[in-house]
Amino acid sequence: RIMRPDDANIAGNVHGGTILKMIEEAGAIISTRHCNSQAGEPCVAALARVERTDFLSPMCIGEVANVSAEITYTSRHSVEVQVNVMSENILTGAKKVTNKATLWYVPLSLKNVNKVLEVPPIQYVRKEQEEEGKKRYEEQKLDRLETKQRNGDVILPVINPEPHTVGYSQSSLIHLVGPSDCTLLGFVHGGVTMKLMDEVAGIVAARHCKTNIVTASVDAINFHEKIKKGCVITVSGRMTFTSNKSMEIEVFVDADPFVDEPRERYRAVSAFFTYVSLSKEGKPLPVPQLLTETEDEKRRFEEGKGRYLQTKAKRQAQMQQSAQQ
Amino acid sequence: RIMRPDDANIAGNVHGGTILKMIEEAGAIISTRHCNSQAGEPCVAALARVERTDFLSPMCIGEVANVSAEITYTSRHSVEVQVNVMSENILTGAKKVTNKATLWYVPLSLKNVNKVLEVPPIQYVRKEQEEEGKKRYEEQKLDRLETKQRNGDVILPVINPEPHTVGYSQSSLIHLVGPSDCTLLGFVHGGVTMKLMDEVAGIVAARHCKTNIVTASVDAINFHEKIKKGCVITVSGRMTFTSNKSMEIEVFVDADPFVDEPRERYRAVSAFFTYVSLSKEGKPLPVPQLLTETEDEKRRFEEGKGRYLQTKAKRQAQMQQSAQQ
Amino acid sequence: RIMRPDDANIAGNVHGGTILKMIEEAGAIISTRHCNSQAGEPCVAALARVERTDFLSPMCIGEVANVSAEITYTSRHSVEVQVNVMSENILTGAKKVTNKATLWYVPLSLKNVNKVLEVPPIQYVRKEQEEEGKKRYEEQKLDRLETKQRNGDVILPVINPEPHTVGYSQSSLIHLVGPSDCTLLGFVHGGVTMKLMDEVAGIVAARHCKTNIVTASVDAINFHEKIKKGCVITVSGRMTFTSNKSMEIEVFVDADPFVDEPRERYRAVSAFFTYVSLSKEGKPLPVPQLLTETEDEKRRFEEGKGRYLQTKAKRQAQMQQSAQQ
Repeated sequence: RIMRPDDANIAGNVHGGTILKMIEEAGAIISTRHCNSQAGEPCVAALARVERTDFLSPMCIGEVANVSAEITYTSRHSVEVQVNVMSENILTGAKKVTNKATLWYVPLSLKNVNKVLEVPPIQYVRKEQEEEGKKRYEEQKLDRLETKQRNGDVILPVINPEPHTVGYSQSSLIHLVGPSDCTLLGFVHGGVTMKLMDEVAGIVAARHCKTNIVTASVDAINFHEKIKKGCVITVSGRMTFTSNKSMEIEVFVDADPFVDEPRERYRAVSAFFTYVSLSKEGKPLPVPQLLTETEDEKRRFEEGKGRYLQTKAKRQAQMQQSAQQ
Repeated sequence: RIMRPDDANIAGNVHGGTILKMIEEAGAIISTRHCNSQAGEPCVAALARVERTDFLSPMCIGEVANVSAEITYTSRHSVEVQVNVMSENILTGAKKVTNKATLWYVPLSLKNVNKVLEVPPIQYVRKEQEEEGKKRYEEQKLDRLETKQRNGDVILPVINPEPHTVGYSQSSLIHLVGPSDCTLLGFVHGGVTMKLMDEVAGIVAARHCKTNIVTASVDAINFHEKIKKGCVITVSGRMTFTSNKSMEIEVFVDADPFVDEPRERYRAVSAFFTYVSLSKEGKPLPVPQLLTETEDEKRRFEEGKGRYLQTKAKRQAQMQQSAQQ
Repeated sequence: RIMRPDDANIAGNVHGGTILKMIEEAGAIISTRHCNSQAGEPCVAALARVERTDFLSPMCIGEVANVSAEITYTSRHSVEVQVNVMSENILTGAKKVTNKATLWYVPLSLKNVNKVLEVPPIQYVRKEQEEEGKKRYEEQKLDRLETKQRNGDVILPVINPEPHTVGYSQSSLIHLVGPSDCTLLGFVHGGVTMKLMDEVAGIVAARHCKTNIVTASVDAINFHEKIKKGCVITVSGRMTFTSNKSMEIEVFVDADPFVDEPRERYRAVSAFFTYVSLSKEGKPLPVPQLLTETEDEKRRFEEGKGRYLQTKAKRQAQMQQSAQQ
């Protein structure tokens, strides 16, 4: 579809969240279709996890987004989908890869939302594809368990914060979950949640550096808890780390089943977003360093640095690998 | 994309206007891409005309709309696009043709919106395709000239109208044209206009028969005049004809360039929509007969009857033809 | 237009904010049209004030909202518009007055947004209409000056608040101002701001009483400061007073011109919203009493009680008056 002014920031760059939402919708369609391809209980595929995603080049207003999705692995109860997004300038014909994402879905019964159904197996062209898929499956399973144990951090407000401290840019928004946000089962689409998370992360980044910012990457996101129609969700973000030219923002989503339900507020999702600041010519600008004050802030900064160096090392290894091929 | 609650009426049937909007977006993308495929002045394809369209089967919330578009003819200054819409129930896998539409676009220069550029010719597989296309081109050209001469009728409000008279169901809405309604040139997307027209026609039909109604068909629509960002558009509809099971509604779009422009309000588009009333089981219901009062209303009723009988005769001829094949 | 699922809460009642937004759009159109009706500098009418508005009966999904607007007074630099909203059930034909609102607009030059232009005078049918309008004009002018002097209160967060205290239900949201939120001048439509304010007030009310709630009335709102495209706005609400069956919520809007501008965060608007809680049959329910803890909270509660009693007295006086007529 054509990118509209509402999909973009004032510099004309399409929000990463708009792209994440399109990716998730494509993944939900292909995996729901696959899981219902054999006779049996009807089901809806629910997003369980999105692997780390890099935004390779920004998309602009007026460009057309081409989204293609393919099922690349199935386990007994989950489906791995690979989604590619290309931006196309229909005036010049130029096409660019915007990003590639890997998503995991789980089929939930339409009759009983707590029942996970079985996934029809796919056929692999080569035997290795199945083995590689299984490896990816095991890896993400481990990672999901890990984040489930991370306990609920809370973002506390700060009065009169100094510029460039954590408190200075931290932000949160609330959103009342409406019918258009939800799947047939009455639970929020993963893509809607990711769009709100990117919105908060973008505001945190812009408050910190006061320039035009774009999403550079999103770390793996695990969806442990469903969010129901009628909930109020609070999406909060705080900066955790800055390198010379990038900012890492941690985002939390808390759900509040606020009418007619006995349940307490709970942490539904959390994730790390990385942003860069761009000049008018589209070049990365240096960003102000984050000032850490408390012990917790210093610890999170070091952890963020660890993730940053790890990603950098991985990328260099990949580049060397492709140079050797 | 997946059909959401906001795309549908309270019975769950997707609005014809939502489908028309998707069709037009697909047509605008493929024809803009084609017109820019050769080096030369960049341009944006603007909708000039939509041929008569039948809605073959209603689409529902939760279904996926598959829209495909193909260029079927090019004249020197215009492009004919054929768009097909299939609805897919991803739970059952069932697919149905929702409708097929033929649209005509004209490339307008990005630098000078009043300049119509040349269209790169397409290659035809068979020679007859070109000839048939040319015939369609000539026919629509004639029809466009004709509607251009139709003068600007105005819908006047009626105080305390009797049930089932024209005044009883006539309706109008106003809409302020915002940035997301517009193309890169700053003019309203034809699809946005058609969606508003369907909304008004639907209100007229529901007021008349007080039951669940759906769009059955839309007569050819000609877009003679562009509508600019910042205009206020008034969309008005009145019933012109009823058969036993269908209602014909005439819809007008008037644009009011109310800031910064010396121009008067002008008639931008007009069209006939046909609606049917559906029972809970999805079967067509009889509709109350339209009571005509004035001479003009009686004349329009007879004209509507003419269109109705003509369409019916055409359809029967087509059915006989396909039965003979 | 037809009310859609996204316009309403989960009980199907249309949000007061959706109605306020429609009212403001109608007011902006009619007053911009009027102010441009004579040759001269083109201008856009900006919302300066909305008088106190009562929501007389809730509107539901599937109903059609009929909005009509009329200019009732003009001063040298401002326009008074009266807007009426009727809800119509198009299946039964039943119509109800939803609310009536009075809005004041000021024409700003399209070339220089800081220049207020002159308003062409309207003709009055009766001389008294002009005098009454002038009286209303003077009254609102006084009230606007008064609220301008009210200083910037800040809502501080509370950790682990007790149920039914002020801290328990207070809420805030942030919103990045996009192109669709803005007028041709690039400033936020007053209606967009009011919709966000109603959203926050509704969440505060629902958090307090955990039942289905609807907007009952909105006190006069003054728009002292424009908000520009690209700003982040923070909308915060806290409960100030409860009677047996109503809740008063104070809402603040702060704007943060966060990219490329030297200006500090500023208070753009503030207002009082009154909510009631409805049973499934649509009858008002008792609401839990607000627990005030600090001196400020107790003072605000007393002030809210004052406003409540004053409104009640006014309404009784009006009822007696109309009974005597």
